[in-house]
Amino acid sequence: MDIDAITAPVMADMEQMRMNLRDIVGRKNPLLLAAADQIFGAGGKRLRPVLVFLVARSTAQLMDMPEITDRQRRLAEITEMIHTASLVHDDVLDDCDTRRGAQTIHTLYGTRVAILAGDFLFAQSSWYLANLDNLEVIKLISQVIADFADGEISQAGALFNCDVTLEGYLEKSHNKTASLIAASCKSAAVFSEVSEDIKVDMYEYGKHLGLAFQVVDDILDFTQTEEQLGKPQGQDLASGNLTAPTIFALRRDASLRALVESQFKTEGDLEKAIAIVNEVGIEDARTLAREEADMALAALKGLPEGEAKQSLVDMVQYILERIY
Amino acid sequence: MDIDAITAPVMADMEQMRMNLRDIVGRKNPLLLAAADQIFGAGGKRLRPVLVFLVARSTAQLMDMPEITDRQRRLAEITEMIHTASLVHDDVLDDCDTRRGAQTIHTLYGTRVAILAGDFLFAQSSWYLANLDNLEVIKLISQVIADFADGEISQAGALFNCDVTLEGYLEKSHNKTASLIAASCKSAAVFSEVSEDIKVDMYEYGKHLGLAFQVVDDILDFTQTEEQLGKPQGQDLASGNLTAPTIFALRRDASLRALVESQFKTEGDLEKAIAIVNEVGIEDARTLAREEADMALAALKGLPEGEAKQSLVDMVQYILERIY
Repeated sequence: MDIDAITAPVMADMEQMRMNLRDIVGRKNPLLLAAADQIFGAGGKRLRPVLVFLVARSTAQLMDMPEITDRQRRLAEITEMIHTASLVHDDVLDDCDTRRGAQTIHTLYGTRVAILAGDFLFAQSSWYLANLDNLEVIKLISQVIADFADGEISQAGALFNCDVTLEGYLEKSHNKTASLIAASCKSAAVFSEVSEDIKVDMYEYGKHLGLAFQVVDDILDFTQTEEQLGKPQGQDLASGNLTAPTIFALRRDASLRALVESQFKTEGDLEKAIAIVNEVGIEDARTLAREEADMALAALKGLPEGEAKQSLVDMVQYILERIY
Repeated sequence: MDIDAITAPVMADMEQMRMNLRDIVGRKNPLLLAAADQIFGAGGKRLRPVLVFLVARSTAQLMDMPEITDRQRRLAEITEMIHTASLVHDDVLDDCDTRRGAQTIHTLYGTRVAILAGDFLFAQSSWYLANLDNLEVIKLISQVIADFADGEISQAGALFNCDVTLEGYLEKSHNKTASLIAASCKSAAVFSEVSEDIKVDMYEYGKHLGLAFQVVDDILDFTQTEEQLGKPQGQDLASGNLTAPTIFALRRDASLRALVESQFKTEGDLEKAIAIVNEVGIEDARTLAREEADMALAALKGLPEGEAKQSLVDMVQYILERIY
């Protein structure tokens, strides 16, 4: 799967969005402009707005609309702003020095600018959201922001807790990742005025794709090298955030629990734990990712054949391929 | 003026709000509960929800409504949550160690919990706001959040800038203080379904009261002792935030500019500057506060006589009294 081919149907949409975003951040505050370049320029697949545009185009086709609407374009921008705001604050919270191999805002410009930039982006997105003039979409997206905060808080409260369940992990992943993707896919469909069934399908597609994406990311955190990751291997585990591979490994190798509970204070313990997870945790996590991916694909049944739908299908495969 | 007498007509409303707020924060996250006690327990006059309840009661009387609505109660909670969230993030931004004489969240619990708590409160308030199901109010309040971010950013960009104008100061004060008060007073009126004229009046009342409040606060930062303030005197000036008294003093004493522009790196310079501001900056600032207060009072003309309106009048006087 080639990501350029997948995003081809919405390339022009994405280009326009990129220019609008830079303009929004840069217009009001020179202080943030440098940070904005850093944020919005830092590679990244921009999965969320791509999905908004693809769902917008496929549902517009379903409803015989000649073009997507300005509200759908604005929605894509809001989605990317909210995602970026959460990344910036997350990096401060996790005290993370690099993201996608690039230095983070708070390392480069300080905690102060990072908090400001995050608050500014959240604020702008709330304002744009309010001005979409659609209560259903406002409620959907404000739920996402509440889910984010819940996700941050429950993660902070469960560090190094070996009794964390798969259910708890999926809920946290929903809050931190899938909720935004699900709500934005559904909101894109709302603006095409599709039936309730199709709206629900789009939510399910986004939710399961988001969960698959998160599980894959959590697998790669163990299976890729530091060079591929752009950050040290097993960083989640090191900071006490137990993800799917670790949860499965805890079921299969009893010696892992003591290592995790000691919080890796003894030299070499973290490396031992990473080796165990790689040995007995990855296969089950792959199965979980596959199951979520299948549920995402099943939710596309009501969309008309066409290049937008094909890209939505291919996106699922693209995400899974990274772990095969 | 006695603040207990002013708030008497809404004491029961305020008590119910306090319980609801503690419940909202405490229910989901033990991590934040301690912080919540700190935040919502830390004295404070809770000016914003008091004003929401007073405007709600006075406009309800105007419309012959027997009671205020649940939405008006929810609005008061949202107002206090947004205000508190902004305080918590502000304290991190300003690296402020005490507020109202009590230690701040980020000093007690660290930057991490402070960012989380602020994000959580912003998120909850967005969610409640969306579920008020009223687009006019959603737009009004989301404008406030955008104004906050603008205020934070323009303040950060103008530190130690002696060319800052009174207009720029008022705009910043609007963004940081008056915008929320204005929007919540107007929103309280919206839920009583008053005429457009009264809505505008309530916005003007909140805006000018908020500006008067800010000017008074900025005066007290110079005229009160460290003990009265619960923080060092002239702290705004020390950090480069030039407020009304300094702006007026810069017009009257040419020697002040050099002191400010040197950023007080020489021992004793800050004390010299504070003395100059106290000497030649306070009187003009008092006049400004008085003018704003008069505009606030004028905006109450359309409200029916009664204890709620009387409290709205007295509140203006109460704020002014602090500088006389």
